[in-house]
Amino acid sequence: MLINCAVYRDGHKLTDIPPADISDYLEQPDCFVWVALKDPTPEELKAMEEEFSLHELAAEDARHGHQRPKVEEYGDMLFSVLHLLELDPEGQIKVGEVDVFVGRNYVLSVRTRSSIHFLDVRARCEREPHLLRHGAGFVLYALMDAVVDRYFPVIDRLGQELENIEERIFRPNSSARTNIEELYLLKRKLMTVQHSATPLLEAVGKLYGGRVPEVCATLQDYYRDVYDHVERITKTIEVLRDMVNTAIQVNLSVISLDDSAVTKRLAAYAALFAMPTLIAGIYGMNFEGMPELKWTLGYPLALCTMVVLDLILWIRFRQAGWL
Amino acid sequence: MLINCAVYRDGHKLTDIPPADISDYLEQPDCFVWVALKDPTPEELKAMEEEFSLHELAAEDARHGHQRPKVEEYGDMLFSVLHLLELDPEGQIKVGEVDVFVGRNYVLSVRTRSSIHFLDVRARCEREPHLLRHGAGFVLYALMDAVVDRYFPVIDRLGQELENIEERIFRPNSSARTNIEELYLLKRKLMTVQHSATPLLEAVGKLYGGRVPEVCATLQDYYRDVYDHVERITKTIEVLRDMVNTAIQVNLSVISLDDSAVTKRLAAYAALFAMPTLIAGIYGMNFEGMPELKWTLGYPLALCTMVVLDLILWIRFRQAGWL
Amino acid sequence: MLINCAVYRDGHKLTDIPPADISDYLEQPDCFVWVALKDPTPEELKAMEEEFSLHELAAEDARHGHQRPKVEEYGDMLFSVLHLLELDPEGQIKVGEVDVFVGRNYVLSVRTRSSIHFLDVRARCEREPHLLRHGAGFVLYALMDAVVDRYFPVIDRLGQELENIEERIFRPNSSARTNIEELYLLKRKLMTVQHSATPLLEAVGKLYGGRVPEVCATLQDYYRDVYDHVERITKTIEVLRDMVNTAIQVNLSVISLDDSAVTKRLAAYAALFAMPTLIAGIYGMNFEGMPELKWTLGYPLALCTMVVLDLILWIRFRQAGWL
Amino acid sequence: MLINCAVYRDGHKLTDIPPADISDYLEQPDCFVWVALKDPTPEELKAMEEEFSLHELAAEDARHGHQRPKVEEYGDMLFSVLHLLELDPEGQIKVGEVDVFVGRNYVLSVRTRSSIHFLDVRARCEREPHLLRHGAGFVLYALMDAVVDRYFPVIDRLGQELENIEERIFRPNSSARTNIEELYLLKRKLMTVQHSATPLLEAVGKLYGGRVPEVCATLQDYYRDVYDHVERITKTIEVLRDMVNTAIQVNLSVISLDDSAVTKRLAAYAALFAMPTLIAGIYGMNFEGMPELKWTLGYPLALCTMVVLDLILWIRFRQAGWL
Amino acid sequence: MLINCAVYRDGHKLTDIPPADISDYLEQPDCFVWVALKDPTPEELKAMEEEFSLHELAAEDARHGHQRPKVEEYGDMLFSVLHLLELDPEGQIKVGEVDVFVGRNYVLSVRTRSSIHFLDVRARCEREPHLLRHGAGFVLYALMDAVVDRYFPVIDRLGQELENIEERIFRPNSSARTNIEELYLLKRKLMTVQHSATPLLEAVGKLYGGRVPEVCATLQDYYRDVYDHVERITKTIEVLRDMVNTAIQVNLSVISLDDSAVTKRLAAYAALFAMPTLIAGIYGMNFEGMPELKWTLGYPLALCTMVVLDLILWIRFRQAGWL
Repeated sequence: MLINCAVYRDGHKLTDIPPADISDYLEQPDCFVWVALKDPTPEELKAMEEEFSLHELAAEDARHGHQRPKVEEYGDMLFSVLHLLELDPEGQIKVGEVDVFVGRNYVLSVRTRSSIHFLDVRARCEREPHLLRHGAGFVLYALMDAVVDRYFPVIDRLGQELENIEERIFRPNSSARTNIEELYLLKRKLMTVQHSATPLLEAVGKLYGGRVPEVCATLQDYYRDVYDHVERITKTIEVLRDMVNTAIQVNLSVISLDDSAVTKRLAAYAALFAMPTLIAGIYGMNFEGMPELKWTLGYPLALCTMVVLDLILWIRFRQAGWL
Repeated sequence: MLINCAVYRDGHKLTDIPPADISDYLEQPDCFVWVALKDPTPEELKAMEEEFSLHELAAEDARHGHQRPKVEEYGDMLFSVLHLLELDPEGQIKVGEVDVFVGRNYVLSVRTRSSIHFLDVRARCEREPHLLRHGAGFVLYALMDAVVDRYFPVIDRLGQELENIEERIFRPNSSARTNIEELYLLKRKLMTVQHSATPLLEAVGKLYGGRVPEVCATLQDYYRDVYDHVERITKTIEVLRDMVNTAIQVNLSVISLDDSAVTKRLAAYAALFAMPTLIAGIYGMNFEGMPELKWTLGYPLALCTMVVLDLILWIRFRQAGWL
Repeated sequence: MLINCAVYRDGHKLTDIPPADISDYLEQPDCFVWVALKDPTPEELKAMEEEFSLHELAAEDARHGHQRPKVEEYGDMLFSVLHLLELDPEGQIKVGEVDVFVGRNYVLSVRTRSSIHFLDVRARCEREPHLLRHGAGFVLYALMDAVVDRYFPVIDRLGQELENIEERIFRPNSSARTNIEELYLLKRKLMTVQHSATPLLEAVGKLYGGRVPEVCATLQDYYRDVYDHVERITKTIEVLRDMVNTAIQVNLSVISLDDSAVTKRLAAYAALFAMPTLIAGIYGMNFEGMPELKWTLGYPLALCTMVVLDLILWIRFRQAGWL
Repeated sequence: MLINCAVYRDGHKLTDIPPADISDYLEQPDCFVWVALKDPTPEELKAMEEEFSLHELAAEDARHGHQRPKVEEYGDMLFSVLHLLELDPEGQIKVGEVDVFVGRNYVLSVRTRSSIHFLDVRARCEREPHLLRHGAGFVLYALMDAVVDRYFPVIDRLGQELENIEERIFRPNSSARTNIEELYLLKRKLMTVQHSATPLLEAVGKLYGGRVPEVCATLQDYYRDVYDHVERITKTIEVLRDMVNTAIQVNLSVISLDDSAVTKRLAAYAALFAMPTLIAGIYGMNFEGMPELKWTLGYPLALCTMVVLDLILWIRFRQAGWL
Repeated sequence: MLINCAVYRDGHKLTDIPPADISDYLEQPDCFVWVALKDPTPEELKAMEEEFSLHELAAEDARHGHQRPKVEEYGDMLFSVLHLLELDPEGQIKVGEVDVFVGRNYVLSVRTRSSIHFLDVRARCEREPHLLRHGAGFVLYALMDAVVDRYFPVIDRLGQELENIEERIFRPNSSARTNIEELYLLKRKLMTVQHSATPLLEAVGKLYGGRVPEVCATLQDYYRDVYDHVERITKTIEVLRDMVNTAIQVNLSVISLDDSAVTKRLAAYAALFAMPTLIAGIYGMNFEGMPELKWTLGYPLALCTMVVLDLILWIRFRQAGWL
């Protein structure tokens, strides 16, 4: 679906144009065309491929989707793949994709499997003509910056989830089974985000410092800023992953501890029953010469002995922390 | 066994030729020869070694087989080893090998221990003469691309296996023993694929960017595309390996939890038996002054007490989650 | 809040000036201005941004805060972010931030969320005019040196915490639950310090050796000294992390050992009760021909047998280490 | 002990010579001398050191032995240390050492603590004069190739040991203790091989590509082949190490599972005894009004009840997998 | 404390001199001064700082002590920090430090917190004037070589400790608690040695190959030899660390196994008591129609039944390995 197709000159929007006119405007040296597609049909993509004469391999990547994040140069065209991360209401991470083709005087963004849109990016760019004047390279920066900035709430959410689990782990009577399942799912989510963010380090790193594609040459401070954000994200994920691994190990220790506590309790209760049972057994013996059996208070005394001994045991187990 | 032996000029197939004529065609500057062998006998290999005057060490590697994936230059000849991965019906991974010798005007592929064939690669190349015109370097690309593309279903299958196990791990009453065995086997398979894919990163990396063998010089975008696929595979394997390791640890926690639950149940049942046994013991004592023994309802009352106390215990154990 | 705003010439303080005069002094080639802000309002920051004409992206980073430690060049201006680490009385680590803008003839430090101040740094600089003569680059060094030096007591404290836990782990009757919780928290703190210190390695590494920003060019030995301190910190953290991980594993072993000891005790006590219960059961049987029941000493003999057998059992369990 | 001392010219052996004549032949520009020592006495080594004027530090290394594998240049002399790995009949790995001094026109190999000899290497070299013509550099290659090739059977054996243990781990009733001990010993052996093989990667890497010692300059394809073998070995070891670590973890899970199964069985058997004991206890009570006691079939009915209830329990435990 | 202060010319010792004369000799171009201090007072250090005009930052490092091992250049002066490792009689590692200042014509070594002295180094240097002629750089080499050589006995001792623990781990009836504690302490010691040795790799690496400080330029083979020793040490430590980690894991498995064995024994003993208790209970029932009670041999038969059944159980538990 075509979202937008507009021509810009000198940092200002000239007009919206129909897709068929794109190639005309591409010939004008001082304009650039900015097209946005969403979940395009193969035919729409094919049309764009021809309008912009995109490289076969890049177009194929956009057609297939499910690429790793990357920035590739095909001649003087840049092809960039970014992952879009969304949290659905249950806290699951949805991974979408935006593929951006950046030429000397055009930007084509193809967004798939995601509800994240870039209308605000376009609006901001149009509000800042002194920056938009940099042309297609600035649009790529603005898109990247917007994509990466939306990783932060996802990371924060994951960090929050870890803290919730941490709090529960050391709380007695928490469900170790739930903790472990949630830690595992959290690890999965972290791997998803890492899978989306880490390749960006290398990709964005190509756009500043050293030899830089011409279209980005005047914007190195800006791309370094994106790089810095991506690095912050990846380092935070690393810390979270490390802590999740440690939490899984620690949880195992807590489970073992609980198991040990249960065994202690089992032992204590067994003793509390075994002691009076033994006494009852003794006075159930059929010896003839058992004087206690004849005592008037024999029976109540026996019962008292049972209760008293159990009380003593109970207190000692209490003190030892077994009960 | 000789599968194919054909001469190409300007991107089009000229004719099939007998192996003995190869050296004649090699002298024609504008042709290239494409030969495919399958599980060749030492004699067949020896014949090819002489027709193409292959380097002794490369020929020896092809003869021995069981090489690591690699790309090596011997003068202006490229020697490339690729692993072929197949899933057999039980989900086991079969590793085959294809060794490709690429000269200025010839390609010799030697396939062993695998049922994967490359007839479709040859057909596709012949359908795209504008690409096949690049010569032997393009054939190498097409073969690599085909080999690597067949890694994806293998990886997907392994990812699917992990998901199946994951689902079972947290389901109560699943067989922890089966889970653990399957996780171990999955890890083994992942190592096999990694062993096949990871060395390709370095190998394919030599074919684009920086100094590139002449035969591949005009095809760098294509080799970069293969590299990108290999990287996607290796990164996915890394994630899977990490998750398998975590799943093994998590499964251990689940086992410990189950053990703990069993101990609790053991303790609870022991108590349910110990309580009436104690009461029975008490009324089995032989004291003379035990008034309850004389009561008409003594016996039924004793039985009731046993039942009631056990019910109370049972309810409390239920509430505590021990039963 | 403005803390300080002074002009220096030739290593000596000239005078305190109001912020509005800064731009005047910046035009004088032989002076440099040193401004210190603490938790500034957006307006204060905006004013400084204009006085010093700071780069938009750097100013934005300072406004947002919560950056990773880094050193970035914007033209001939250096922008540096450092983390300030404080221990609160409960041993928690508070992370503050100081952002330093360093130009040819100015230093602007913006401190947020921290009670650590740099009055002593300013005082020391003013006492050493032969060093302060190096200008803004030396002030940056002095600030970095002061920030990094305050990491050492934090690290020492964490090392001390580890030693305390270590001592407890192997002591019998220590609370394994507390140990594990403290190990986890310690790991968290180590990750916090590492998160603050490790990026400094790369950042400070840019300021000596190789191509160096002009403002630091004459101070490379000094920046290498800071680098050396940071490296000492990061290596110490690595060792601590490794030992914490090992301690968590070792603690799990100790827990398992304790569990095993409890099971042994449970078994021993069960036997101590089961033996006399069995004897009592035997003499509770109703056979007619049980001669012992008629013996005068039958009853005391039975009791003695119980005690003696239990004593023997007790001694053997003692010897086996089960009790 | 002197094994061999011969002069070669143009790829052919001239003659065996006594060690004292070595220095004479070294002056002839077109010859090279190949000397092999085995477990030499310090005096023998000293004599060689003087004949070849070896560098003091290299000679000292050979005298001390127990070096890491390495290749070092001393001026235009190469000093290479290789480990020799042998399997003794019990599957233990014996580590020997061969130190090779390679000059422009001599090779001196010093073999210690190993029964592996190189007579076949010398024989093969003499059969291939077109290769031996490359001189001392080729002899070094032939020795390295022979040493490295003997690592493969060792690795295969270790891989086989792992497979044996793997099979046992998941088999019920296998001895977990033996498995664990063997896994540990296997890990030890893997570390030994890795210790011998990994440093070779760097060492052999110096002999091809980039700046290469003159004596090896024409043999780069050959050294790359050795490098490739070493890499195959080190990668295989890495996989084995990883799998051994995983197997140790998996074995722990299996142990925990077995423990859990034992606890279940304990609980089940306890119940099977507790149930009839309780019934017996009930009918052992001394109440007057227990009608069952008077029934003719009371006793057999009670026994039947015990058996039937136990049967029911037994069936249910069977179904639950506890027995 | 001043240990030594001597002047050397052309590899030979001229004379001992008082510290105050140092600066006079430093002006003579063909001499070099070698001073050794031990645990110096701040005043002694200050005096040396002035005699040699040491760089402020280096002098400060020496004053503070507790530096990481390193080699730093200050102009044409080298500042080197080395750790001295000693084993005290209980096997604890004591870490001392020697700081070496090396100028064109002087060496100043400052040793602290260690009883290791370098008199033998000085003696050896004076015995080998042809090497000492290289000047201050050779003295630095000799000191480094001596320091590093003393790491080997420490490592050997740690390797020996690991072997002792390994032997005990798999021996039944060994104290798992002691093993675990010793493994943890061993790990600690390994980290200490690693902390001292690893930074030397980088430090010594600066002294050979590539751009080398002038004072060491003619001694690159010697420094490479030191590097090689350090690498051997660090690799051995890595192997030891890896094995210690594995041993900790393996020990946990052994503990779990022992725990499982105890549970089995508990179950077996419980059964051995429960069986006769049940029989006794049955014959303690008060049914009227129990013919066995009337049999003359009823009682001994009952006892026999108990013994026989227990014997059968005992044999079966024995066979199952539970007892």
